[in-house]
Amino acid sequence: MIDQPELASLSKGDSINHFLLVKKSDLRLTKQNKEYLSLELGDKSLSVQSNLWDDVKNFYNIKSNIKTGSVVKVKGQLDEYQGAPQIKITEIRLAKDEDNVTPLDFIPTSNRDLEEMKTEFRNRIKKISNPQLSKLLKNIFSDERFEKYTKAPAGKLWHHSYISGLIEHTLEIIKICDLMCDIHPELNRDLIIAGAMLHDFGKIEELSFDSAFEYTDKGKLLGHIVIASMIVDEEIKKIKDFPEELKINLLHLILSHQGKLEHASPVVPKTLEAITLYHADELSAKVNAYKLTLQSEIKQNSKWTKFINLAGTDLYSHDLENFSEFDNKTLFD
Amino acid sequence: MIDQPELASLSKGDSINHFLLVKKSDLRLTKQNKEYLSLELGDKSLSVQSNLWDDVKNFYNIKSNIKTGSVVKVKGQLDEYQGAPQIKITEIRLAKDEDNVTPLDFIPTSNRDLEEMKTEFRNRIKKISNPQLSKLLKNIFSDERFEKYTKAPAGKLWHHSYISGLIEHTLEIIKICDLMCDIHPELNRDLIIAGAMLHDFGKIEELSFDSAFEYTDKGKLLGHIVIASMIVDEEIKKIKDFPEELKINLLHLILSHQGKLEHASPVVPKTLEAITLYHADELSAKVNAYKLTLQSEIKQNSKWTKFINLAGTDLYSHDLENFSEFDNKTLFD
Amino acid sequence: MIDQPELASLSKGDSINHFLLVKKSDLRLTKQNKEYLSLELGDKSLSVQSNLWDDVKNFYNIKSNIKTGSVVKVKGQLDEYQGAPQIKITEIRLAKDEDNVTPLDFIPTSNRDLEEMKTEFRNRIKKISNPQLSKLLKNIFSDERFEKYTKAPAGKLWHHSYISGLIEHTLEIIKICDLMCDIHPELNRDLIIAGAMLHDFGKIEELSFDSAFEYTDKGKLLGHIVIASMIVDEEIKKIKDFPEELKINLLHLILSHQGKLEHASPVVPKTLEAITLYHADELSAKVNAYKLTLQSEIKQNSKWTKFINLAGTDLYSHDLENFSEFDNKTLFD
Amino acid sequence: MIDQPELASLSKGDSINHFLLVKKSDLRLTKQNKEYLSLELGDKSLSVQSNLWDDVKNFYNIKSNIKTGSVVKVKGQLDEYQGAPQIKITEIRLAKDEDNVTPLDFIPTSNRDLEEMKTEFRNRIKKISNPQLSKLLKNIFSDERFEKYTKAPAGKLWHHSYISGLIEHTLEIIKICDLMCDIHPELNRDLIIAGAMLHDFGKIEELSFDSAFEYTDKGKLLGHIVIASMIVDEEIKKIKDFPEELKINLLHLILSHQGKLEHASPVVPKTLEAITLYHADELSAKVNAYKLTLQSEIKQNSKWTKFINLAGTDLYSHDLENFSEFDNKTLFD
Amino acid sequence: MIDQPELASLSKGDSINHFLLVKKSDLRLTKQNKEYLSLELGDKSLSVQSNLWDDVKNFYNIKSNIKTGSVVKVKGQLDEYQGAPQIKITEIRLAKDEDNVTPLDFIPTSNRDLEEMKTEFRNRIKKISNPQLSKLLKNIFSDERFEKYTKAPAGKLWHHSYISGLIEHTLEIIKICDLMCDIHPELNRDLIIAGAMLHDFGKIEELSFDSAFEYTDKGKLLGHIVIASMIVDEEIKKIKDFPEELKINLLHLILSHQGKLEHASPVVPKTLEAITLYHADELSAKVNAYKLTLQSEIKQNSKWTKFINLAGTDLYSHDLENFSEFDNKTLFD
Amino acid sequence: MIDQPELASLSKGDSINHFLLVKKSDLRLTKQNKEYLSLELGDKSLSVQSNLWDDVKNFYNIKSNIKTGSVVKVKGQLDEYQGAPQIKITEIRLAKDEDNVTPLDFIPTSNRDLEEMKTEFRNRIKKISNPQLSKLLKNIFSDERFEKYTKAPAGKLWHHSYISGLIEHTLEIIKICDLMCDIHPELNRDLIIAGAMLHDFGKIEELSFDSAFEYTDKGKLLGHIVIASMIVDEEIKKIKDFPEELKINLLHLILSHQGKLEHASPVVPKTLEAITLYHADELSAKVNAYKLTLQSEIKQNSKWTKFINLAGTDLYSHDLENFSEFDNKTLFD
Repeated sequence: MIDQPELASLSKGDSINHFLLVKKSDLRLTKQNKEYLSLELGDKSLSVQSNLWDDVKNFYNIKSNIKTGSVVKVKGQLDEYQGAPQIKITEIRLAKDEDNVTPLDFIPTSNRDLEEMKTEFRNRIKKISNPQLSKLLKNIFSDERFEKYTKAPAGKLWHHSYISGLIEHTLEIIKICDLMCDIHPELNRDLIIAGAMLHDFGKIEELSFDSAFEYTDKGKLLGHIVIASMIVDEEIKKIKDFPEELKINLLHLILSHQGKLEHASPVVPKTLEAITLYHADELSAKVNAYKLTLQSEIKQNSKWTKFINLAGTDLYSHDLENFSEFDNKTLFD
Repeated sequence: MIDQPELASLSKGDSINHFLLVKKSDLRLTKQNKEYLSLELGDKSLSVQSNLWDDVKNFYNIKSNIKTGSVVKVKGQLDEYQGAPQIKITEIRLAKDEDNVTPLDFIPTSNRDLEEMKTEFRNRIKKISNPQLSKLLKNIFSDERFEKYTKAPAGKLWHHSYISGLIEHTLEIIKICDLMCDIHPELNRDLIIAGAMLHDFGKIEELSFDSAFEYTDKGKLLGHIVIASMIVDEEIKKIKDFPEELKINLLHLILSHQGKLEHASPVVPKTLEAITLYHADELSAKVNAYKLTLQSEIKQNSKWTKFINLAGTDLYSHDLENFSEFDNKTLFD
Repeated sequence: MIDQPELASLSKGDSINHFLLVKKSDLRLTKQNKEYLSLELGDKSLSVQSNLWDDVKNFYNIKSNIKTGSVVKVKGQLDEYQGAPQIKITEIRLAKDEDNVTPLDFIPTSNRDLEEMKTEFRNRIKKISNPQLSKLLKNIFSDERFEKYTKAPAGKLWHHSYISGLIEHTLEIIKICDLMCDIHPELNRDLIIAGAMLHDFGKIEELSFDSAFEYTDKGKLLGHIVIASMIVDEEIKKIKDFPEELKINLLHLILSHQGKLEHASPVVPKTLEAITLYHADELSAKVNAYKLTLQSEIKQNSKWTKFINLAGTDLYSHDLENFSEFDNKTLFD
Repeated sequence: MIDQPELASLSKGDSINHFLLVKKSDLRLTKQNKEYLSLELGDKSLSVQSNLWDDVKNFYNIKSNIKTGSVVKVKGQLDEYQGAPQIKITEIRLAKDEDNVTPLDFIPTSNRDLEEMKTEFRNRIKKISNPQLSKLLKNIFSDERFEKYTKAPAGKLWHHSYISGLIEHTLEIIKICDLMCDIHPELNRDLIIAGAMLHDFGKIEELSFDSAFEYTDKGKLLGHIVIASMIVDEEIKKIKDFPEELKINLLHLILSHQGKLEHASPVVPKTLEAITLYHADELSAKVNAYKLTLQSEIKQNSKWTKFINLAGTDLYSHDLENFSEFDNKTLFD
Repeated sequence: MIDQPELASLSKGDSINHFLLVKKSDLRLTKQNKEYLSLELGDKSLSVQSNLWDDVKNFYNIKSNIKTGSVVKVKGQLDEYQGAPQIKITEIRLAKDEDNVTPLDFIPTSNRDLEEMKTEFRNRIKKISNPQLSKLLKNIFSDERFEKYTKAPAGKLWHHSYISGLIEHTLEIIKICDLMCDIHPELNRDLIIAGAMLHDFGKIEELSFDSAFEYTDKGKLLGHIVIASMIVDEEIKKIKDFPEELKINLLHLILSHQGKLEHASPVVPKTLEAITLYHADELSAKVNAYKLTLQSEIKQNSKWTKFINLAGTDLYSHDLENFSEFDNKTLFD
Repeated sequence: MIDQPELASLSKGDSINHFLLVKKSDLRLTKQNKEYLSLELGDKSLSVQSNLWDDVKNFYNIKSNIKTGSVVKVKGQLDEYQGAPQIKITEIRLAKDEDNVTPLDFIPTSNRDLEEMKTEFRNRIKKISNPQLSKLLKNIFSDERFEKYTKAPAGKLWHHSYISGLIEHTLEIIKICDLMCDIHPELNRDLIIAGAMLHDFGKIEELSFDSAFEYTDKGKLLGHIVIASMIVDEEIKKIKDFPEELKINLLHLILSHQGKLEHASPVVPKTLEAITLYHADELSAKVNAYKLTLQSEIKQNSKWTKFINLAGTDLYSHDLENFSEFDNKTLFD
């Protein structure tokens, strides 16, 4: 862990002496035909625009080594341009091994332990009884792809928008769906859990998350729902005797999980499993989103956030003491 | 239990020899100034219009004894008028003690055991640690009112629309909310559980459910959300030192639980507990509604229901085998 | 061609002596446990419900030969049940070869010559210069699949809703898109024409159209947009060196061609080709839909149709003489 | 009245020598742990942010005396920070008695004479014939509460958003409703006038208006409609024999007066009085809002305001002479 | 006045011996090539379909004399076909002078005295001070056109939908606007009153109202707003020196009076007069519409109407006594 | 053509030595009562605010000669105020004849040759067979009005928003409509082409386009749809025996061409010609708008524009090679 004040806590004029992640890097020409680097630098709290001019020491050495995803040590001052913060760089160098910093130090990460989450996820796959679904899930969540999956955020900004947010979000939905299966034996548990595991799986190609979280071209032009459907369709074709009825029900869960056409699902939920998955997803996503918003937007001396567009309201943080001593174990006696 | 074919299974011309519940009864005059009774008769499956003319035997004895909520024994034939079924009555009498039927035999009832649900509900109140909330809940859910509450349906038609549906629905929400509290320690467990218990509580005055489920005048003009708020406000005033902050947070949960202004909540959810309760309610309600719809609307030789207005689609019932042997106990290890 | 009055022109009580297509056939039991066939019979103008009771001559010979898609000769009378027409059957037999009728005599068909349309379509493929697109289109529209494609309607009810309507509709869009390419050289002609050819291609699996036009289970649960995307994705994988940029642009055309999320496109048009295809599709579809509606809904002595839900209005048929002698050839001098 | 240029008329760099109202005051720490006051200062025309640093003379004397609602005399200069105006304070002191200024000099106030409005309101109550409604209105609008009520604005920004705007607005609605009762004798005049008087009454708790107009926590979490309903319900309970039918009709007027669910009414108008009150409220509110907007937003040399979000358009101020000599007295001959 | 039971009060099988208005008349051929008349007959309460067959006595004498707008004397019986009422005619004749009935006896008419309304309208024109507006109004509301105007209904179904409803509605709006001018001297009284008088004036061509109220072809294709604008534009051109600013403000009132684009106004209200006229129109229209609906839809033994689509709710008729003795004269002291 | 860098390519601090168009000019007073000119100056790329203070050389000579539509030569520097660019003027003079610049050098203009477009338009009129339509079009598009028409832009910002954009847009629609007439002989070609020519014709009064494109007062208060309808109505009245049916169908095309009420059409399309014109207009407008947006908003090193409000998305510019060698002439063989 790096020990330096967060960018978001600094004001105009404050001096910078920070390790920062290069979130974007572009070599450009000024009108006078001199080279400069247009950079986006940031830590977990903020991303800031900065231009690296050719009069900065060692510009010509460093210009082709600074890439998206590099970590740099920057000295300078926080400035402001057209209402947005900027860093005036006076010195810059690439991070060295002995600095002991990695890109992951600069992007937000799930608070849950990743290994624990991986184990929980793999264990849940093992409980799938249906042999075709079991095989499909093992094939899809294997090796490299599982590594990528367990690193992905669930979104760019709104909910579970941090490294390993996608698996954290998925595990919450699985718990909610298992609870609903306890209440409603009519639900096909294997089917709905497989749907839960795969519903947002396309986000590993919709988003890039090595440094800043960005939508990919493919992500914007196809969307994670269709990306996932095409991968699942392809993987199902590889499994002998995968039942057609099971296939279209599983694909339906992925396609309909955003619940409404205007939320970019090409079909609305039409099965009992689909309506359950949609609302389990909503519950997990919205509670996480409101929690993150309250944590980041409640300001000193206030109980209210600013107006939050995605919520359509400002949010309130009460200060009621939470002293319930509820005994969790008795819930499902 | 009465042993007779359900009305919904009969066709035009079939003969009737049934105990039926009087769902509405109105003494009217024909244009020739003769008295007749305009009746709505039904069982759990259907309600049917019927006129009792004065030439039916013992019309004059029975006309003032047949009231909404009476059970009658009817002989006659199923007829049709302007596209709707009607019963042509040839004989009618009030049910007697020895018939061993009660109005509850004719209206749908929760499949869960009522005493078990009552115990579960009372036990959950006992786990509330906050003394004012605990007192409030005990006062509100006491004696007569608890009896009425545990009988109420959660709605007229869409979800948990049967006797004791309201407590069944509430217990589901409580389980979902307790699960969310396990995931998010930031949630105030006592507050959200109290909100869950009270959120639809106004339905005991919004609906009448002695025989058919109908909205009351008060229910239509004020709505269950405001009815509940006024009762809770009144009960809070009776409790010494009930904290103002706790009061407005609890009322906010009731007022905002339908999530959107256009769903008749006068405020949208603005706290972490409120957004959780809204989506827990949605999850419980929608899954139950779709299940009931699938059970009643899937016809012989079809996997599809008709178009369901409230769902905005027709629903599909797959025939996948559900053979998961998931071990529930391991969920929260 | 068969020579018999259209069902839609008959009234209650009129006698029936018709060849009709079996659009649905279901063997059921009465409450008295006798077998009967629940049939939907129709010609191009109307579909009518009918029950074939076991007292009709040769019921036991014929009951297992009457299937969806059979043609039958029926004698009886037009009746009415619950406000809908019904046929009371007195005699029935399967059509024989010498009757010289086929199922296609009973479902509406495009007015354009099919062979001409096939030629036009194949010729347009030949003009595709891009080798990968050319190969992809030839693979997809080959043999059996092309046969099926050229038979499909473009929809169940609204526009080009007749046999070979899909290819007729597609050829219109191609013409409109070619015109737009003439006006805007910035448009990539090969890309947009390939998109036009594939945009509604998934309808061959979304709909069944051997007898009545019906949505398939797969069609309702996945939708033609995703069905087409999965097939195209699969076919692209078979072509060596198909460029990724070309692939996502082509898939984007299919996915976005309904223009708006609420019209079931999972992404909105984001490229110049996509916005062109969307509006070319709208133009072709709406003009055809309004024309069909005016043709079928204008009644004797009226210039107005009834209120048409999909148009949100009633439509007007003026009686202005159309005597323009416009010389088409001069359009693009 | 104070004689000083309005803040809104000043430009960056202009000097300040003004009495101003403290609309918000917050004691904070700089990053260097020095105290400073974050202030919002304003007059009727504008509110401006300002920081009072500890190097301003007598900072330590004054810091704990400056509170929300104080009036201060400020010297300094109008500056700008991140696009918003700021005051650079060089001297500050609290207003003294001999300055002869009060907070009300700095917040906008109704142009109508308050005593006249109070008399008009009390006289109208006297004309209520129904004894229970008469008693209810006298109890609710008594003493302290009436004082508060007659000071309240009807809104924060849009219409009648000035001191005593609520009573001015209410008196307008009463006139409109009385006119509608003249036209439609079917309207229950007592009921509708009582509803008009109470409809926005909850705003006295929804808003704080001692200095700047702000929503209270309670106001945001419960809303003025429910606040009013709970008070009216409580006051009705104190009146012997208040008819239930009258009570739910009166509450319905309050609950439904915003006309649509999406405007935060939990029920829509369902009675003749309710639909009348809703549209009378709209008429009074919108005309006032457009008038205020035209007065404040029409700039030099223009007949158009900027785009007004709440109106969904820009507004136009014609310069037609208004020379009608209409004789008001003849209106209702 | 004719003395006969209203059609709406009769039931299937009741005998008919009524004068009725011919609302539509169409000579058609049966499939057997016999002539018959397809008639729509009605009184103020109901319109009923009826076919006049050629076996009715004097069919051949009467067939070409029965036209839309004729009054006929009919004997027969009330029957039912496909769920809708029909009259089986056994005898029919045209009304004679000595029958003393006119078409106006069969269509609903305003309860207000027409001559009184005409005088009120003409008197209000006289109070217009602006000479061009005064001249314009006198020209437009002169002679024949005034006669037609004062007969027109304000709508087909919803509000003031009876003979002379348009002038009744307009006079209400004038009163409301005059009241708003008293409250807001900023309103240009002449302009807004002229706008009120002309706002729905195009309905005299949008609707036909000699017998049943129907939209004309022109009315459906152009709409009353544009029809009125074109007439007013034409009449303004005839007046010398009509100020351009006055013209576009007056036309703006007509064009924007439905308040929202989706209500078919091509521009939204952008002036103070326009927003006032819009809400005055709403107030007059909605209160009248709800009153008519409550009068016609409240059934025996119920306080609720059926669900009313245009209101989006069912309506409630309380039975509170209306004993206010409000003294109208004191309103504007 | 003038040879100077475009304003949009300059940065803060760059020096200005430009001919610029005066888009707005306003003589105002400072608080110190000195005169200054508030100017909006621009070229094809950008409009910039600038104040001309009285200390600039020859202020008093020039102040009354600088008017909206003048061309001036300006020296100074590009500055920034409140986040927007400004020009600090040090010298200014009016353009002289020998400078050889005209206002049209500073506003964007169609890329098509104007004379060619005029010829194409006039030739298409000549092909109208219907004598009344032919006469109407010749009268409306005659002399001065045709000159004005052929100069007008089709909009202020979104599509064809440049000098002669209106005729370019109209010619595109004509081609599309002629193609649709080839496909659908049911379309009345003369009627739809006349409608296409007149549909946006009101824009010549809705917009002013001598210098910057601005809405006129009349344009904002009446809208181009109604302006056009009133002119066409007036011109039709001048033509003897213009058929009423033709008139209302032609006006309907103008009124309904924006397709939806919420797009400011007072009626929706109800005829086959109207639905065709609406979608042809959409196709032409949207493709042009997206092309212009992609041309102006794609930045260096990016394939994406910023988020475009009117499109509801960001737009993508692929870099696929466009090497189709499609032979246009074969299209309609």
